[in-house]
Amino acid sequence: MTKELLDKFLSGDTFIASKLMKQVENGDQSVWPMMREISRRTGNAHIIGITGPPGAGKSTIVDKLIYLFRENHYKVGVVCVDPSSPFTGGAFLGDRIRMSHATGDKDVFVRSLANRGALGGLAPRVKEIVQILDAFGKEIIIVETVGVGQAESDVIHVADTTLVVEVPGMGDRMQALKAGILEISDIFIVNKCDREGAQNTVRDLNMMLDWLPEGSWRPKVLPTNALNNQGIQEVYDAILEHKSMLIQTNKWKEQRLQRSKNHCFSMMEQAVISYIHKKTGEVPELKKIVESVLEGDLDPYSGAENVLKELFSSAEIIKYGKGGQIK
Amino acid sequence: MTKELLDKFLSGDTFIASKLMKQVENGDQSVWPMMREISRRTGNAHIIGITGPPGAGKSTIVDKLIYLFRENHYKVGVVCVDPSSPFTGGAFLGDRIRMSHATGDKDVFVRSLANRGALGGLAPRVKEIVQILDAFGKEIIIVETVGVGQAESDVIHVADTTLVVEVPGMGDRMQALKAGILEISDIFIVNKCDREGAQNTVRDLNMMLDWLPEGSWRPKVLPTNALNNQGIQEVYDAILEHKSMLIQTNKWKEQRLQRSKNHCFSMMEQAVISYIHKKTGEVPELKKIVESVLEGDLDPYSGAENVLKELFSSAEIIKYGKGGQIK
Repeated sequence: MTKELLDKFLSGDTFIASKLMKQVENGDQSVWPMMREISRRTGNAHIIGITGPPGAGKSTIVDKLIYLFRENHYKVGVVCVDPSSPFTGGAFLGDRIRMSHATGDKDVFVRSLANRGALGGLAPRVKEIVQILDAFGKEIIIVETVGVGQAESDVIHVADTTLVVEVPGMGDRMQALKAGILEISDIFIVNKCDREGAQNTVRDLNMMLDWLPEGSWRPKVLPTNALNNQGIQEVYDAILEHKSMLIQTNKWKEQRLQRSKNHCFSMMEQAVISYIHKKTGEVPELKKIVESVLEGDLDPYSGAENVLKELFSSAEIIKYGKGGQIK
Repeated sequence: MTKELLDKFLSGDTFIASKLMKQVENGDQSVWPMMREISRRTGNAHIIGITGPPGAGKSTIVDKLIYLFRENHYKVGVVCVDPSSPFTGGAFLGDRIRMSHATGDKDVFVRSLANRGALGGLAPRVKEIVQILDAFGKEIIIVETVGVGQAESDVIHVADTTLVVEVPGMGDRMQALKAGILEISDIFIVNKCDREGAQNTVRDLNMMLDWLPEGSWRPKVLPTNALNNQGIQEVYDAILEHKSMLIQTNKWKEQRLQRSKNHCFSMMEQAVISYIHKKTGEVPELKKIVESVLEGDLDPYSGAENVLKELFSSAEIIKYGKGGQIK
């Protein structure tokens, strides 16, 4: 069964691909045998992350990049985890107009992910969607996300090349940058560069980049005005330049293996978390414990201890059972 | 031992409280017996969440609110998980000046949390820090966070009253709001209300609130200029008004119990995730599996399957072992 579906998938069946993505999003572990086969057929795509605050123009940039990649005959996949993006359901209707290049082209596959409430976090899902697109033959995969929180930083770690989009006059956002965005960016884009203060933003970013250690990749800071396509070719060129560097230094390969390892851990965590939730919803004894906590008859620590004792034979999981003390 | 430390903690020993928080942050399960005692002494504090984009002025608002709460003899705790906040290490040095009211007052306890790389996410840690502050006698606990990603939304769920801070001219941020922030906010603050467009932002927010179902709490939209204390008294009043509503409708109690249940699940997840990471780092057989994935000799799915098989006796965790298929 898996074999037949796999063949269909590999021959380009969009319906199977979409269904598989849906199952992955739902955390359905019955797709693991299929995903195992798929993961063995990945590693060819170049993965581009694009992140930045809501309203920075990420989706417009993505749209223009899709156009350039398609013009150069790359097959393109897009994964969107930005609640403010026109790709996702969260956006106002009119915004979809911005995504003109993604529609009606069978070699562009767009997938939006709801970013709330996923058991075990979003990142494992995004990794799997990227794998599906990779095995499905997409050569360029763009992951769009809002770049502030931890969930988003985790997501961006799937990328080979990360674009960080800023807009002029961000002021205090510089603090946030310093606190984490700087280290994950490979290319900075200052979008809406016709606005006042654009040159200052470019200069400030370049000043921050002067702090980078010698010998490391120095991100370019590229002003764009995505709405009228200004500067997009330069972004495109910078992406390919960064890719060449990764391949020459063998980092392209190394990062893939590191991501495989991280993905392996994500899956284990996801499996066990799902197991806990399923069991506490099904087994009367465990349901009762959870209800006692919900009624205030049992503190959450004792509740957790009791459920873990019932679920897992290993005493080590419940370390405190040995009379742990505050050290 | 736990008893002695608990007594010291309950008598107001700041050193013990800080140490306990440190252990909680590190995911040290040996504090569970102590935390169990602590959790039995919680439920008195009113928890205020404050969220919004970097640069919106959250920290300044928190600072002015601290002043008002102290003036009214409330004991105050602050938990900060905003990478751009002056409370955290990520901020530029000069920013600490903004937090003038938090320093030198023994009845204000401020704790900053690093927001990256925590196993099992940030939210469980924040909940525990809040519990510690609660049992420590803080009557008002303010949790500051950046409000975009999933990690942050999870964090904000610990709050009784959630303040969402916006600034004039946010434009496209409205989309993000629509996609999730709207439903978690109890009070909207439009800070920097001396700026152009402030009235429009207040109006737009009020228009969005018109969509709320009849009979639900309608968040006030309060313009502030925190730097010169304008509008802060109104925010303070609105918080107490919201608290009264929660108590009258019994929601205050219900939310606490619901949070206990969620916390119970967080702890179970955290325990099992820690266990997986510890074991794969210690047991030679498991280490070898992870290394095979890292070297590209084994796909991550088989890696996860093999580790789970070794670690957990329950066959149910490894559902795919029964020949799961894509349905």
